This record gives sequence, C-alpha cells and structure tokens, in this order.
Amino acid sequence: MSGPVLGWTAERLARLSLAHVVEPGDPGMWRTVATLGVEGAWSALRSLGSDSRWKHRAAVFDPETAIRLTERSGARFVIPGDPEWPEQLEALATCEPVQERMGVPVGLWVRGAARLADVARASVAVVGSRAATTYGEHVALELAHDLVRAGIPIISGAAYGVDAAAHRGALAVRDAAGDAVTAAVLACGVDQVYPSAHAALFEAIAARGVLVSELPPGEHPTRLRFLSRNRLIAALSRGTIIVEAAFRSGARNTVTWASACGRPVMAVPGPVTSGLSVTPHRLIRDHEAELVSSLEDIQALLSPVGQDTLVGHQEPATTVDLLGETELIVLEAMPGRGTTGLDELSVRAALPVPRCLAELESLGAKGLVREREAGNWQLTHRHLDRRR
Amino acid sequence: MSGPVLGWTAERLARLSLAHVVEPGDPGMWRTVATLGVEGAWSALRSLGSDSRWKHRAAVFDPETAIRLTERSGARFVIPGDPEWPEQLEALATCEPVQERMGVPVGLWVRGAARLADVARASVAVVGSRAATTYGEHVALELAHDLVRAGIPIISGAAYGVDAAAHRGALAVRDAAGDAVTAAVLACGVDQVYPSAHAALFEAIAARGVLVSELPPGEHPTRLRFLSRNRLIAALSRGTIIVEAAFRSGARNTVTWASACGRPVMAVPGPVTSGLSVTPHRLIRDHEAELVSSLEDIQALLSPVGQDTLVGHQEPATTVDLLGETELIVLEAMPGRGTTGLDELSVRAALPVPRCLAELESLGAKGLVREREAGNWQLTHRHLDRRR
Repeated sequence: MSGPVLGWTAERLARLSLAHVVEPGDPGMWRTVATLGVEGAWSALRSLGSDSRWKHRAAVFDPETAIRLTERSGARFVIPGDPEWPEQLEALATCEPVQERMGVPVGLWVRGAARLADVARASVAVVGSRAATTYGEHVALELAHDLVRAGIPIISGAAYGVDAAAHRGALAVRDAAGDAVTAAVLACGVDQVYPSAHAALFEAIAARGVLVSELPPGEHPTRLRFLSRNRLIAALSRGTIIVEAAFRSGARNTVTWASACGRPVMAVPGPVTSGLSVTPHRLIRDHEAELVSSLEDIQALLSPVGQDTLVGHQEPATTVDLLGETELIVLEAMPGRGTTGLDELSVRAALPVPRCLAELESLGAKGLVREREAGNWQLTHRHLDRRR
Repeated sequence: MSGPVLGWTAERLARLSLAHVVEPGDPGMWRTVATLGVEGAWSALRSLGSDSRWKHRAAVFDPETAIRLTERSGARFVIPGDPEWPEQLEALATCEPVQERMGVPVGLWVRGAARLADVARASVAVVGSRAATTYGEHVALELAHDLVRAGIPIISGAAYGVDAAAHRGALAVRDAAGDAVTAAVLACGVDQVYPSAHAALFEAIAARGVLVSELPPGEHPTRLRFLSRNRLIAALSRGTIIVEAAFRSGARNTVTWASACGRPVMAVPGPVTSGLSVTPHRLIRDHEAELVSSLEDIQALLSPVGQDTLVGHQEPATTVDLLGETELIVLEAMPGRGTTGLDELSVRAALPVPRCLAELESLGAKGLVREREAGNWQLTHRHLDRRR
C-alpha cells in the first residue's frame, strides 16, 4: 500500500483491500482474519513469504484506484463499527461452514437511500426459484407486501422469479414508514445489473431500500459468489422463507445458511403436483422448515413466545353449532320432509314427550322448526346447513 | 325379546338390538356395555326400572323384524369375534371421547364382495372436503390409486369431492390382488344411497370392496351419526390423510379421532391461496399432521416400528428401535397428542417420577419428546418417522 489515504483509517483500508483481493466467504482467509485481525491478515498477505493463493492479486492491488471506483459507483463501503453495519452478521463468526464458504464479510458495498442496518434489523428473507410459477410469484409478492406493511422489510437476491416478486411486493407498499422496505443482496458489484432486464427494479430498490454486496464495484457473479452471497441473505434477516424451489435450487443453500445461523426457516407450501413444491415440502416434511401461509404464521415464528399480538382466526359459529346436545338430538330426529307428532318424535329421539316439547319450542324460537298445526312439527329450511 | 332366534346367539342378538336402539357412539351406553357386557347392557335397558333415554325404543324393538331387514338389505351383521371383524376397532375401547362420541361399535353392517377385515388391515383413510377443487380431487384420486397399487386399501366416507375421488382412484386399479380395494363407511344404513347421485359408485364399491355402517338398514344420516361414523374411519385405518378441507370441516373431526386412536395424521398441502388448504396447512403448521405429498411419504409414516410390510426389504434400525426398555415404556406412556405432567406420566408408565424424568431427558436428547413448558412434556413427531 502506497501510504495513508485521506479520511480512510488503516483498518478500513485493510478491509477494502481484503474485500478486493480475496473471494467472499473464503474459509482460509476468514481463519486468518479471525486470528490476526484484518490489518494483520492484510500485512501477512502482502509479505514476501506469503503462500496465500491471493498474494498475486494483493501485489497488484492499488487502494487509490479502488477508492475511486467505489466513489464513482455511488456506493459506500461499510465496515463493522459503522452505524450502518448490521450487527446480526456476527452470527457468521461462529456458524459452521456451508459448502466450504464461511465468515463475517470484511466489509460491504451498499448503494441506496436506506441505511442497511435499518432495513436488516427486523427483516425476513424471501427466496425461491428463478423459474417461479405465477402462483409462486403471486405468493412471494403478497407475502412481501404484507410483511412490509407490518414493518418487516425484505431481504432477497435479485434474480427473476421469487426474488423479483418479493422486491416488487415490498416496493408496492406506498405508505411504509421511511426508506427501508427491501434489500437486494448481490453476487456482483452494486453498480452491476444482473440480470440486465432488472435495471428498473434495481433503481426502484435503490430509491427505497438498498443494494448490498461483498464484492467491489465492477465485479461479475460466479457460482461461488452466489454461494457466499446466500450466507449474507440468511444472516442479515431474522428468518428465511422459501417460496417455490425445485429439488436442486440455490434457495436450498440459503435455507441451510439460515439453519446454520440459528434463524427460523419457513416454507410456503404449494400444489404437490408442481415440481417447484418439492423443496418447500421436503423441508416441512423433514421438519427442517415450519409451514407458513400468511403474515400471521410468520410473525408467530419471529415473535418471542408469549408476545404474539394476533389472536387465532375465529370463524363465527352457526346457529346449529350453538345448540345444546338435547336440542340437537331433537333436531336430528325430525323427519327431513313432512311433519311429525310428539309421540313419534319422542320415540325417534329417545326422549320423554315433555322434554321433546320443550326442545321443540326452543328450536322454534331459533327458527329451526315450526308447529305446522296443533301438535305437528316440521323443519324449516334454516336447518339445511346442519349436515356434518 | 321374544325368545331365541334361529342361528343367532344371545350375544349376537343383544348386539343387533343395541345397534338398533342406541345411537352410535353414545358415551353412556358405551360405559354400560364396558361394565355389564352387551347382554347385560341390553337386559338393563329393557328392565322395568331402566332410566335410559333409549328404553322406549327398546320396548318397541322386534328382533325378528330387524333380522329380516338385515337379510333383505343384502348386508351381514358382523360382531367382535367374527373372522370379518376388524380387530383394530378395539383402539376405540380406550381412546378419549371426541365431541362426546366414543366406544367400540357393538356391531357393523357390511355389504360387499370383500371381507371388511381384509380391506381394513393395511388400509389408510383418505378424507377431505365435499367441495374439493379439481386439484384436491386429482390428488385424492392419484394418491388412492398409488396406495391400492402398493397393497394399501382405502377407507373413506361416501360424500362428494375427496371421498368419491379416493374411492374412484382405488377402483381404477385393475390389477389389485383380490377384492379388498376400498371401504366406504356410511352414516346411514348400507342399503341407503346418500348422496343419491352416488348410486353407481356405491355398487362399484360393493363389487370390489365394502360398504360399512354402524346403523341398521333403512336409517338416514344425521349430524351426530356423521360424528360417530368419523371415529370408525379413523379407527379402521392405520392412518388418516386429509386432502383439502376448509377451516370448518368434518374431515377435521376424523383427524381428531385418528390422533385420539394414536394413528398417524397426514396432510397433503396445496396452494396457500385456496381456502381448502386452510385445514391441512394448519394441521402441518401446528405439528398435528405430517406433510405427505407422495406414496413414499405415506409409507414411511405407516410402517410399524420393527416391522416392514415389504417382503425381503430390511430397513435400518430407527432411533426408537435402539431405545432401552424403560425409555420405551416412558415413550409409549406419552399421550398421542397434547402434553402430560410428570405425575400423570409416572402413573401411566408405572415408574417413579425421578425415573420418568431421567428417561424423558434421555428421550429429549434423542429428539423424541420435548418439554413444552415447565414440567409439561409432549411427543415430537420424530417418533413417527422411522427413517431418521
């Protein structure tokens, strides 16, 4: 490094440098950072004796060019200790590797009107298939919309299908308090648009949320970068919801990260006839995810026990539901058509005549039976919803 | 009773009489039968001093007319001890009442080419909404078809929607071994056709399965009879699968019976946008049912521990197989649903409280039970899942 750069501390510069030179989620580098700290790790990497696979990249790295690149991209480079840094990423310091990726990012590029920490604090992740069906997109959009209206921002990727639908649902909330509705976590630089058809979506997210990446501006996505990116989606949010995913799916990897971080995993079911229900249904079947189908289900899993504000859904009882047992017996003993006399009814209901009469009068007051002529009773049509 | 009837033992006649005079599932009569036996219960009912609500019906009951009615209906009256009697109904002798219905039926009318015991032995119940969608009917039909092809007959009701689709799926299997593909359990006499549009379906079921009822020929369905009927569907089968059911649904009642009998409850998910997914999803969400989406899922839940219905196929030992004797005693003393306190469990398991606690902790470490709240324990669903 050529010397101090205006306004950048040594730690911030070391983080910027590592973030440029080392691939995100690299387990070896994470262990070095955990042992030596970021400045120590950066020094070791640049030392003559380094045997790191990153040492050639480190040798050609120029911090001033990197800073200019970041400035031009409109992004800010955020590190632990900054007000915008989301503390919950620290879960990655202790969680097990998933597919050989691991570790807290050394820094994040953030672009957009919101503050990352504000978006992430109460957020949930919504992930799923790029090849989502109309059903999957509908559900992702509606759930994200309901969540944001309830003050729960969305974290997702930026792919077609479920990711895009979730962001669109979040952005459709017009009366959200503040600009913290959604965050797209990218596997490329925050100045890149991948897929390119999402240019307008990216700008809408930047206007009312944030674009986030562990990769420097200008960088393109790779398969490993997607795997590393997934750990950020899981660790930034309070829980991950999977909506439609085929048997092989990147969303499955995000869910594994959520479990590894100790965050709830939630899955939205769908038709068993759809191949995109396979992963959500397997996760539920194997008790690796909780089934969720509504905002209330999600809130119940996110809220600490006993703090659930929503009471269970109550359907109104019908007149027949509210009948006493003997009333019901008499009602059921009535002939489906025509009338019955008291004696006959008494035998059918296996109840004494005076008891039958009393119950008939009570049922009559509720509009379920009527006395057609002296001593002859019949059902009205209100009883017809009573079967089963 | 006027005297002995040709070919009918006193016990069989007492059962026929009780089945004619007492409503199915009546808890008072079940307690009397459990105490006095069927003949004692019938004598008591006909005694001058009886205060039973059924005594007037008993007074006018004529066994010879009843026998003629049964003979004319083409049905046989089957009682415990008959080769055709399904032993698994004995589960109803000890299970808790559901909506104030309870007890083993005193006898069953059976009509059809199959033997009830043969249909029921390996069966599963498929239940759900009368107002099923195309999706629900498709899934019920396909699952029933797959089950019957795998040698697992179907038990259901006879309603529109899921019930009918399940029977049709079973009947569509042309190469099934023997006439034991499906049973329709009715809330009316086996000579009645309710709903009347199902006349052809009933005859198809009778030709390759059975129609079953606790009610005498000629009787019509009532709400209470449906509730009592549901316990037979649950108790006859090794497990109950619910396919599409709205928030208020008779199928929910059948599922409660299955739990009460200690049989696995399974639910097929569907689109969260459908009101008919509400009950299956709630059951899964609340861990009252296991999610199933295929024959394989169902088979995994049904196979009894340590036994396998597939010849020559050895499954690896399960967690439950490897339990110590006392652990197993405590596990088996746990209620099928809900929680139990230590004192109650100690009584059920016939083990001292500290011993129970030690075994519970060991079972908890194996993921088979959990402490729901201080001192209250419940089964997890892992004890059902033999694959883990």
